Amino acid sequence: MHKLTGSHLIDGQWRQERSSRTFDAIDPSTGATLPPVFFSAVGTEANSAAEAAKRAFDLSLDLPPKWSADLLDKIAANILDLGNALLERVEKETALPRARVTGERGRTVNQLKMFAGIAREGSWGDATIDTADPNRQPLPKPDLRRMLRARGPIAVFGASNFPLAFGVCGGDTASALAAGNSIVAKGHPSHPGTNELFASAVLDALQTLNLPIGLFNLVQGPGNEVGAALVNHPFIEAVGFTGSLRGGRALFDLAAKRDRPIPVFAEMGSVNPILLLRGALSENSATIANGLAQSILGGAGQFCTKPGVIFVPSSQVDDLSQAIVKALAAASELVMLNYGLRDNFCERCSHLSEIPGVKTIVKSNPTGHASISPGLYETDTEHFLSQLALREEAFGPAALLVKYENEADALRCIDAIGGSLTASLHIGKTDNPTIQKRALAHLESIAGRVIVNGFPTGVEVNDAVVHGGPYPATTDSNSTSVGSAAIRRFVRMVAFQNVPDELLPPALQNANPLQISRTINGQRTKANAE
Amino acid sequence: MHKLTGSHLIDGQWRQERSSRTFDAIDPSTGATLPPVFFSAVGTEANSAAEAAKRAFDLSLDLPPKWSADLLDKIAANILDLGNALLERVEKETALPRARVTGERGRTVNQLKMFAGIAREGSWGDATIDTADPNRQPLPKPDLRRMLRARGPIAVFGASNFPLAFGVCGGDTASALAAGNSIVAKGHPSHPGTNELFASAVLDALQTLNLPIGLFNLVQGPGNEVGAALVNHPFIEAVGFTGSLRGGRALFDLAAKRDRPIPVFAEMGSVNPILLLRGALSENSATIANGLAQSILGGAGQFCTKPGVIFVPSSQVDDLSQAIVKALAAASELVMLNYGLRDNFCERCSHLSEIPGVKTIVKSNPTGHASISPGLYETDTEHFLSQLALREEAFGPAALLVKYENEADALRCIDAIGGSLTASLHIGKTDNPTIQKRALAHLESIAGRVIVNGFPTGVEVNDAVVHGGPYPATTDSNSTSVGSAAIRRFVRMVAFQNVPDELLPPALQNANPLQISRTINGQRTKANAE
Repeated sequence: MHKLTGSHLIDGQWRQERSSRTFDAIDPSTGATLPPVFFSAVGTEANSAAEAAKRAFDLSLDLPPKWSADLLDKIAANILDLGNALLERVEKETALPRARVTGERGRTVNQLKMFAGIAREGSWGDATIDTADPNRQPLPKPDLRRMLRARGPIAVFGASNFPLAFGVCGGDTASALAAGNSIVAKGHPSHPGTNELFASAVLDALQTLNLPIGLFNLVQGPGNEVGAALVNHPFIEAVGFTGSLRGGRALFDLAAKRDRPIPVFAEMGSVNPILLLRGALSENSATIANGLAQSILGGAGQFCTKPGVIFVPSSQVDDLSQAIVKALAAASELVMLNYGLRDNFCERCSHLSEIPGVKTIVKSNPTGHASISPGLYETDTEHFLSQLALREEAFGPAALLVKYENEADALRCIDAIGGSLTASLHIGKTDNPTIQKRALAHLESIAGRVIVNGFPTGVEVNDAVVHGGPYPATTDSNSTSVGSAAIRRFVRMVAFQNVPDELLPPALQNANPLQISRTINGQRTKANAE
Repeated sequence: MHKLTGSHLIDGQWRQERSSRTFDAIDPSTGATLPPVFFSAVGTEANSAAEAAKRAFDLSLDLPPKWSADLLDKIAANILDLGNALLERVEKETALPRARVTGERGRTVNQLKMFAGIAREGSWGDATIDTADPNRQPLPKPDLRRMLRARGPIAVFGASNFPLAFGVCGGDTASALAAGNSIVAKGHPSHPGTNELFASAVLDALQTLNLPIGLFNLVQGPGNEVGAALVNHPFIEAVGFTGSLRGGRALFDLAAKRDRPIPVFAEMGSVNPILLLRGALSENSATIANGLAQSILGGAGQFCTKPGVIFVPSSQVDDLSQAIVKALAAASELVMLNYGLRDNFCERCSHLSEIPGVKTIVKSNPTGHASISPGLYETDTEHFLSQLALREEAFGPAALLVKYENEADALRCIDAIGGSLTASLHIGKTDNPTIQKRALAHLESIAGRVIVNGFPTGVEVNDAVVHGGPYPATTDSNSTSVGSAAIRRFVRMVAFQNVPDELLPPALQNANPLQISRTINGQRTKANAE
C-alpha cells in the first residue's frame, strides 16, 4: 500500500523542490488538517512533468496499439486494490458519504474498463479507406486512408466535485490514455491525498506492465502558477478541465494566446434550466416537486447538472414553491466539499437575494464547518432577462424559480441563458403539441442534453450520452466529457496516401489485423482492403 | 443571367450603403480594371447579413431535413447554368487558364453534389441510441439518443487561390449548408465578380425552392472591418477560412476573445516538407526532379500544398537541383492571381536570399504585370534549424532545398516545422526499413496527410482525405476542410433523454424513417430502435 508522501509524481519518481511552498488537506466536516503536508508544485516541476510525458509518448509510438487498453485495465484493478484506504481518504477529504464514494469508485473503475474495451476493440479511430484506381482519367487515383491519432501529452485538471470519476484517473485521463496520449494531471487541491493514491495506482500499473514510466505524471498545489506553466508548455498538446467558468476560461485564454494554440476541453458547469409547462404541473405536481428537491440536494447541490433555474407558470408558482420547500427541509445541514466552495456559495446566495425583483423563499445559511442549508429563490421573466447575474450558476443546493405569464416569455429567458449542459422540459397530456415542439427546439439550441419529464442530475456513461453543450457550459460544444464519444477529443485526423502496407498503422492495413469495422470505398465492412 | 451590381446580397436583396467606399476588380495579366465598381461592405452591412442568416436559420428548423440537399443540388445546377459568363469572369479576374477554371468548376459542382448526397442520405450525424431499461438497479436506465446538429449562422471567408472550389460556394459553404447551417460569405476581394455570380446562383436556388431567403448572404470588400464585424457578431456561431497564416490567426484571436468564444476552422497553408531518402533519389532521380518541378509550378505555386521545403542528402543535392532548374525553366513567366500575392512572394524570395546560409540557385523575378519567374534556393540543416524565417511559407512558385548529412538531422528539422497540411517521404528499395519507419513517424506527427513516393499537390475529394494538420497549417488539427468528413466541423453534439418519439429529429426516431445506419446499444444497424 502506498504511503502518502505529499510530493509529485514526475517520470516515475515521487519528487518535490525542497524550497517550494506547502498546503494542507482539510476535513470539511471538522476543519481538521489531514496529514501529510503537501508540497505545492512550481513551474519547473510542471515543465519536468511535461517533458517526461513527451518522452514517454514518443516511446509509446513503438508499442503495439493495445498498450493503453492493458494499462487502463490494470489501473482499474489497482484502484480496487487500494480498498478501504482509498475510500477512507476520500471520505475524510470530501465529507462525501461512504455509499457515494463507493458508488463513484465503481463508476470510475467502469469508465477505465469501458475505455480499455474501446481501445482494445480498435474501431474508435474511424478508419476510412478509399482504394487506388491507377486507370482513372485524367489522373490516377491514389490510395488514401484516414484515421484518428493520439495528440501527445495532455494536461488534465481534476475536478473537485467528482474526486474519483473526474479526478486524476477520471474520464479525461481515461479517454486521453485510451486514444494513446500521455498525461500530466493537475490534482484538485481539495483532495490531494486522493489524487496521490490514484497516481500510485497508475505508477504501479506502468511498472508492472513495463510501460514508459512518464505516461502519467501528477503535479499538485493550489494557485494558478503550475496550471499556467502546463498550458503554456510547448510539449502539451491539449487540455482537459472540469471546474468553474472562471478557471476554465482562464485556461482557454492562455491556450488561445500561445504561439501555437492548443485546444482546451473545459466543462464549466451551467444553470441547467427546467421548463415546466402548465399541463405537466397540474397533472404531476407532487412528483415534480419531489424530483426537483432531490435533484437540487443531490451531492449537496455540487453536481454540474444541478437544476439552477426553473420556469413555472405564475399561477402555479406558490403551490410548487411550498412543496419544494417542504421537500428541501428534510436536509437542513449539508456538508460541502470544502470551505472555499461553501463560502462562494453563501456569497452567491447573499448576492442573489439582493438583486432587485428576487424574493427569498428559503435563505441558504452556513450551519457548521463547511456546511450550509439549502435555499430557494424566486423572480419573474422580466427581471431574469434584465439581470445578467441571475443567469450565473450558484454551485450548491439552491435554485431560482422564474414565474412566467406565457411560454413565449419563458423561451426568451431560455434563449438568453445561451449555453447549458442540460435543459429539461416537463410536458403533460394537456399541453399544446405546438408549444411542446417549440419549447424543445429552444431548449435544444442551448444545451448538450435535453430531457423530457425528468431531471438533469444522474449522468449515464454510455455511447449516446452528451455531457457538453454551448459556451459557457463548455469551450467546445462538439464534444462530450462523459461516455464513449469522449475519446474523440484528444485526437487529430491523419490521412496516409500511397503508404506501403507495412508502414501503415494496423487499423488501416489491408488485412484488417484488428478485425474492426471500417469504411472502404463508402461501404462499412470488416473485409480486407485489397 | 445575373448582371453584376457591385453590391452585397443581404436577406435576398442586392444592397449597399450609398456612403461606403469602393474597390475594383483587376485583371492580373494586364492590370486593367474590370467593371463594375464594387462597394466595400461596412460593419452595419455585416450585422444585417448576420441577422438575416439567423432569422433564416431559425425558420429552417421547421423544414424537412432534406432542404439542404435540394438547395445544394440546385446551386450546383445553377453554377453550370452560368456557363461561359462565369468562366470568362473567373479567367479575367484570376488569369487562370480556361482548362483550370473549367476543371475547378467541375470540382466545385461535384463538391456541392457530394454534400447534397451526404445530407440527403442522412447518416452523417452519427445517430447513436441507447435504449431505456426501466428495471435496471439501483436506478432505471433512461432512453438516450445522440446526434450532430447544425450550429446556426456560419461566416465563410473565401480563398483567393481556389476562386471556385474554395470561394463563396466552395467546400466550407457546401459542408456548412449540408449540415443545416446558414451562411454569411465574405468574398475574397481578388475576384469580386466571381463571388457575385456565385451568390446569384444561390439566390435563384433559394427563390426557386421557396427556402428562407437569408440562408445565404454575401458581403464583399478589402480590409478587415467587415470580417471582424462578422466574427464578433453574437449570431455567428463558427467561422470557416482559407488563406494566410496572418489572416487566419487574426480571426482566431478575435473569436477566442469574444464573451462567448466560437470555433474558427482556418486552413492557413504550410511548407509541405518532402524528405528524399538516399535510395529513392538514386533509383528515381529523374522522376523525382520532374515531379517536384511540376508540383512547385502547379497553379503558379499558389496551392496550399505546394512543396516548399525539400530535404536532400548533401551528396545528391547538386544533381537534383540542376535537374529541377532545368524542369523549372520551361515556365519562365507565371501570372499570379493578383498583384498583392505577386509582390508578397517577391519580397519573401528577396528576404530568403539574404538569410545567412541560403544559396540562391535560381532567383524568382517579377516579369510582367502580376507575373514572376520560378525560384529555387538551398540551405543546410544547421541554418534551417537556427533561422525561423526558413520555416515560413513562400506562397508562389519557389522551393528551398535543405541538404542533410544524415537522416537524424533532417528529422530534427521536420520536428521544428511543427505543423503542415502534408508531409511526403520518398523511399527506395535500398533504403533502411528502420529509417523509413522512423521518418514516417516524424512526418506523421506534423502533418494532416502523409504521402509516400508522391507529391502533395492534387487533393482528392473523398471520404478518406484529410486537408488539415497541426498549427500553423490549421487552427483545428482534428478536422478537414476537404472531403466528406468536412461536414463534422460546423456542428455540435446533442443528446435527447426520454424525448417522445414524435418530438425527436427523424434520424433518431424509433422507426428510422431516414433508413440510415445507426448505433443502437453498441451495434451498427438499420433496424428500428424499439
